[in-house]
Amino acid sequence: MAANAYDTDLDRNPANHQPLTPLVFLERAARTHPDHLAVVHGPLRRTYRDFHNRAKRLASALAKHGIGRGDTVSVMLANTPAMLECHYGVPMTGAVLNTLNTRLDAAIIAFSLDHADAKVVITDREFSRVMKPALDAATVKPLVIDYDDPEFTGAGERIGTLDYEDVVAQGSDDFVRKHPGDEWDAISLNYTSGTTGNPKGVVYHHRGAALTATGNVVNCGMGKHPVYLWTLPMFHCNGWCFPWSISVVAGTHVCLRQVRAGLMYELMATHGVTHLCGAPIVMSTLLNAAPHEKRPLAGPVQFFTAAAPPPESVLVAMKEAGFEVTHLYGLTETYGPSVINDWHRDWDALPIDQWGALKARQGVPYVGLDDLVVMDPAHMVPVPADGTTLGEVMFRGNVVMKGYLKNKTATDEAFAGGWFHSGDLGVMHPDGYVQLKDRAKDIIISGGENISSIEVEDALYKHPAVAAVAVVAKPDEKWGETPCAFVELREGKSATAEDLITWCREHLAAFKCPRHVVFTEIPKTSTGKIQKFKLREMAKEA
Amino acid sequence: MAANAYDTDLDRNPANHQPLTPLVFLERAARTHPDHLAVVHGPLRRTYRDFHNRAKRLASALAKHGIGRGDTVSVMLANTPAMLECHYGVPMTGAVLNTLNTRLDAAIIAFSLDHADAKVVITDREFSRVMKPALDAATVKPLVIDYDDPEFTGAGERIGTLDYEDVVAQGSDDFVRKHPGDEWDAISLNYTSGTTGNPKGVVYHHRGAALTATGNVVNCGMGKHPVYLWTLPMFHCNGWCFPWSISVVAGTHVCLRQVRAGLMYELMATHGVTHLCGAPIVMSTLLNAAPHEKRPLAGPVQFFTAAAPPPESVLVAMKEAGFEVTHLYGLTETYGPSVINDWHRDWDALPIDQWGALKARQGVPYVGLDDLVVMDPAHMVPVPADGTTLGEVMFRGNVVMKGYLKNKTATDEAFAGGWFHSGDLGVMHPDGYVQLKDRAKDIIISGGENISSIEVEDALYKHPAVAAVAVVAKPDEKWGETPCAFVELREGKSATAEDLITWCREHLAAFKCPRHVVFTEIPKTSTGKIQKFKLREMAKEA
Ligand SMILES: Nc1ncnc2c1ncn2[C@@H]1O[C@H](COP(=O)(O)OP(=O)(O)OP(=O)(O)O)[C@@H](O)[C@H]1O
Ligand SMILES: Nc1ncnc2c1ncn2[C@@H]1O[C@H](COP(=O)(O)OP(=O)(O)OP(=O)(O)O)[C@@H](O)[C@H]1O
Ligand SMILES: [Mg+2]
Ligand SMILES: [Mg+2]
Repeated sequence: MAANAYDTDLDRNPANHQPLTPLVFLERAARTHPDHLAVVHGPLRRTYRDFHNRAKRLASALAKHGIGRGDTVSVMLANTPAMLECHYGVPMTGAVLNTLNTRLDAAIIAFSLDHADAKVVITDREFSRVMKPALDAATVKPLVIDYDDPEFTGAGERIGTLDYEDVVAQGSDDFVRKHPGDEWDAISLNYTSGTTGNPKGVVYHHRGAALTATGNVVNCGMGKHPVYLWTLPMFHCNGWCFPWSISVVAGTHVCLRQVRAGLMYELMATHGVTHLCGAPIVMSTLLNAAPHEKRPLAGPVQFFTAAAPPPESVLVAMKEAGFEVTHLYGLTETYGPSVINDWHRDWDALPIDQWGALKARQGVPYVGLDDLVVMDPAHMVPVPADGTTLGEVMFRGNVVMKGYLKNKTATDEAFAGGWFHSGDLGVMHPDGYVQLKDRAKDIIISGGENISSIEVEDALYKHPAVAAVAVVAKPDEKWGETPCAFVELREGKSATAEDLITWCREHLAAFKCPRHVVFTEIPKTSTGKIQKFKLREMAKEA
Repeated sequence: MAANAYDTDLDRNPANHQPLTPLVFLERAARTHPDHLAVVHGPLRRTYRDFHNRAKRLASALAKHGIGRGDTVSVMLANTPAMLECHYGVPMTGAVLNTLNTRLDAAIIAFSLDHADAKVVITDREFSRVMKPALDAATVKPLVIDYDDPEFTGAGERIGTLDYEDVVAQGSDDFVRKHPGDEWDAISLNYTSGTTGNPKGVVYHHRGAALTATGNVVNCGMGKHPVYLWTLPMFHCNGWCFPWSISVVAGTHVCLRQVRAGLMYELMATHGVTHLCGAPIVMSTLLNAAPHEKRPLAGPVQFFTAAAPPPESVLVAMKEAGFEVTHLYGLTETYGPSVINDWHRDWDALPIDQWGALKARQGVPYVGLDDLVVMDPAHMVPVPADGTTLGEVMFRGNVVMKGYLKNKTATDEAFAGGWFHSGDLGVMHPDGYVQLKDRAKDIIISGGENISSIEVEDALYKHPAVAAVAVVAKPDEKWGETPCAFVELREGKSATAEDLITWCREHLAAFKCPRHVVFTEIPKTSTGKIQKFKLREMAKEA
């Protein structure tokens, strides 16, 4: 191409080009609103000045211990101030933050520590029962730092050589953060939920983290100074990047070690919580709270839900309880949510069942995601936007991971043809909104017909006795597969298998109705997702 | 550096890396809210579907005429639907949009067309009296397209070979936009206001335009579906990137050919305007409207002001009139605003004079700007944050221009030392907020002491008889320079030079008080800025 005036003597330089990174957001909040309340945890109150200083101290202490670009710092922490500080302090050194899922077992954690090549581990005393054997079993021998949260009064020994508060105290708040050399540098390592098998190590970069952080603010319409309750685990996709988003708008983090209904209502009332996030299970927890645990909402409360299909009945109940629910969708691979059920004002006038059906659709690209399509993966062509033709949901844009760590095969597969393959099956509605029907591995094929397990579950969720349900394929000689439903009943309510099958007949085409119903506790991952691969094993015996 | 797992097999590919560009925002709005009202102009109403289709048609027609990457399309347009379409249609072809200042004369426009190497010119019939001689005088011979806006019923001939509506009609809405090969590709060319001399050609890139577009939404806390009144000329810094911001939040553009008080109030009331932008002169126009022109505000109206120092008295009067004013600051070189007077909630409780003094400060970096400092330019070290030491305001970040077109010397000077030098003098307050004191060229040095012309002007603006004022240096044998004030009086009010000097004595240190006062009309640029270089000539004779 011939040189063109717009390409001549107009190069990048430090004045006009800086790597995108979410680390600037905390710096800015601390400069602009130093006295604003940044962190609440039990009786603890920290301003943005304190929060920023502590993050810098942590960074400087880690740097003194030799931590720098490309090193992994793994943390086993609840939703505490230390976890927030790690989201800034670790990448300030150039290192990569690896948040461990606090509900995994020692064997998987040992595997992760080795896979991530952890140089430092920061671990909450509550989890030492798992971390001690994990560290014993791991090949890597990281520096272990104990975090002894005053809000945790239960059992658990210290297993490290340093104390987190001492480390922070020894650091210096004069620390000048390492600038990422390139916005493509890794900022964090997040393992997937392991719903479909072994978790994979998803690598995030500074660019994507910065864009998702501001993207959350734009997409969720968050104004200045929100009060954000930490019901979503920060170990899950870095809390959907909200530890960084909240700095963008100088909000207040209300920490929470455990998702318990009474405490959530109490904190919401006490601190005037305006926003919270969570899987549909968190909504159910709020809705099913005992009457004495509930408190009236002080003002409008925005609930952002993602991670699993939210049953229509739960969405409707949340509306009736006064929450404003926004339905998001995404994967660990897309920094958490990157699809939004972008609501139309006039949909609020619709009858409640239509309202619920629209709310249950996953939606359109986040501001920040370039494109979202439903494709026939064999030919990489979009399916017709008819609301019925099934295809694989695919993403493209800057809020898609770098790839899977040390797994070129999986990375190449995930990005085949220049699109990120989600493994989720869905349809494209005529209005451009995507709706998920199932995971590719969960779809049930009966007599050659696809059955969406989500659709069958939604029908069962509407039955008054059903508290939770999951539908999977059961092998069948005649039909290939048939739907098998696993059900948890509401306390004090009863229903027979026959009742539920009859109910389904009224709401679904006959071939979609479960042939078997099993009453049992449904196995879930620690991020609140149903483990269908376990249920499929159980279905074989049913 | 040794290879590191986070840099291995984790490369950019089309699935996870796309050039940032504001063009996706219109695509997204058209997909998500196709029936939402995008553009209002007189009786005209266009939805996002229409707006997007017309922009694609324009692009496809331009592409058929050979327009592509690196070509310049210059437009001489008022704030009309065509101007909005050009903000998308032109860069969709890969070309660069050059918006011409509609109030310049033929000679400067001819110069700009040649400097920009314009391939196509789109010109509103209203401006043909200037454009015809400009095109005759220019060396380039662009394709000229007339835009005959039905809302313009005044004089003016057609001077082109094509009609804008025919061009759009001939285009195809199947057009697939050219993806910028790189987010560093130029998207627009904006000449500075020429306050300090000859305008310079500032080149914007797709990355900065996208970040400013979302930055406006985040910084200004704009929620979904704002109704935006076009009181700021779109030819000025691409309307501070709001033509792109409004798509991010699927808002409604209310077009406006002329900033007239009666019409502004009428449109605000009729369309429920929620947001508007403008130089301080627009605030004065609203405040000084005749009683019969005013209308009560329907709801909260956000006014974003920048471009010139807003007098404290005007800020206070706007508050009293019920507007919520946010004070922004920036330069053409920083995509319009990139500094914000980020307001603290508790400042609202202060007495009105303190309120006004705080509101008049320019503030802190926009979310999106990496850093903002006040430096001693000779040594490139920050001045103390004491609120008094004067230094040059400097910027660093991704919302700073590529550079000046065909002007390597000016570009290198502007970026010397890795910071963008604004040419504005200011102080850093202890709380991290920047306050401008003067332009470097406008500061008055009297007996070796700096006098901020803004400070003297602010004192005079508080006098009840003063409608507008500008203070410049007048050469003085004894003192070197002394302040000379140019004043426009309010209708029906009177004051003598002696009155005003006495007034200043009460409000300012004696050495800062003007020695001369001249009653006259103050020369302004077309963006509402006072042309102090002209006043300095006049002061010599005073
Ligand atoms: N709003 C939603 N509706 C339906 N399903 C959702 C929604 N949000 C997320 N999901 C499901 O969660 C998945 C992403 O979850 P995550 O990345 O936490 O791990 P996982 O996919 O459950 O685990 P693994 O990839 O290890 O099997 C999506 O692929 C989708 O199936
Ligand atoms: N909020 C503000 N307060 C005071 N001055 C402002 C504010 N916003 C902008 N300005 C002034 O406007 C200038 C930027 O204006 P613009 O880029 O339109 O052209 P110009 O600087 O007036 O013209 P030229 O660069 O050609 O002399 C800033 O450098 C500053 O002096
Ligand atoms: Mg997955
Ligand atoms: Mg300038």
